[in-house]
Amino acid sequence: MKMLEEKLKIDKIPKGTVIDHIDAGYALTILNLTGLDESKNLMTIGVNVSSKKYQTKDIIKIENVFLDETQMQQISILSPNATISLIENYKVIEKKKVKMPKTIKKLILCVNQTCISNSGEPISTEFTVLEEKPLKIQCVYCERIYKLEEIVFTSKEKKGKKVKQRIQL
Amino acid sequence: MKMLEEKLKIDKIPKGTVIDHIDAGYALTILNLTGLDESKNLMTIGVNVSSKKYQTKDIIKIENVFLDETQMQQISILSPNATISLIENYKVIEKKKVKMPKTIKKLILCVNQTCISNSGEPISTEFTVLEEKPLKIQCVYCERIYKLEEIVFTSKEKKGKKVKQRIQL
Repeated sequence: MKMLEEKLKIDKIPKGTVIDHIDAGYALTILNLTGLDESKNLMTIGVNVSSKKYQTKDIIKIENVFLDETQMQQISILSPNATISLIENYKVIEKKKVKMPKTIKKLILCVNQTCISNSGEPISTEFTVLEEKPLKIQCVYCERIYKLEEIVFTSKEKKGKKVKQRIQL
Repeated sequence: MKMLEEKLKIDKIPKGTVIDHIDAGYALTILNLTGLDESKNLMTIGVNVSSKKYQTKDIIKIENVFLDETQMQQISILSPNATISLIENYKVIEKKKVKMPKTIKKLILCVNQTCISNSGEPISTEFTVLEEKPLKIQCVYCERIYKLEEIVFTSKEKKGKKVKQRIQL
């Protein structure tokens, strides 16, 4: 009975995408960063779910949505072990592991103000992935090295942004 | 079968809180604003779920967590129709509707720079609720009126904040 309860916590979807084996606690960040949080489609999300392989994990199921290349890269940076399954008629028709690119272009800012990517010239940011887990990336221009928690992501402005927040003093 | 699939999308929890009838698309904002997004407990979230009463809705189930008064108020501002159920042994032991307070203290900033609440004096913000849905609140000091989408919420700094984001130019 316990196992059954556990298994049924999030159910199958007829068509869409399942993002599984997300690092525990990163699902909501992924939704925000990829812009999936603005979708009008049915989503079910599990956070801190028990996992045989990684103790705990997050999982996202989203109906009628398939990810683009940028979204896959964003997920690979935050959760290099994530898997993406494409669903049709309740069945997995394709399953793949996210793959971190060797260089990450445009998705991340270099916070070094003297870096040429911040000079106002039309130069897009570019980082070389030195290590995947724990993540270590290096700006190809100024050679500054960043860990995951130091990264500043770029993100598109959201039209439907629900609330504004300011940190309490 | 269709109905069964629908019903099982998010399953029962043994103990904790179910926040139901959240306005569609607001669950992730509520998790962020209340700080529940930093919980290490198991959470299941449904976004844009079909609902008889309101067409679509969001729902949050969180194990072993019970909400405090501030969190209940934050939810009432974003989703005045939300219901909160307390669960023990898979059963609802208490169910209540969120109740919007007549005055909202501290949770919202007045963005009017000449308002006395922004003078540096130790004066907390306070708003009178003029209308609940659509929300209309008024600053008790400068009398400026705000709609939901104009509100700037205060929020505690999060230690475990996963990523920083900057809007792409």
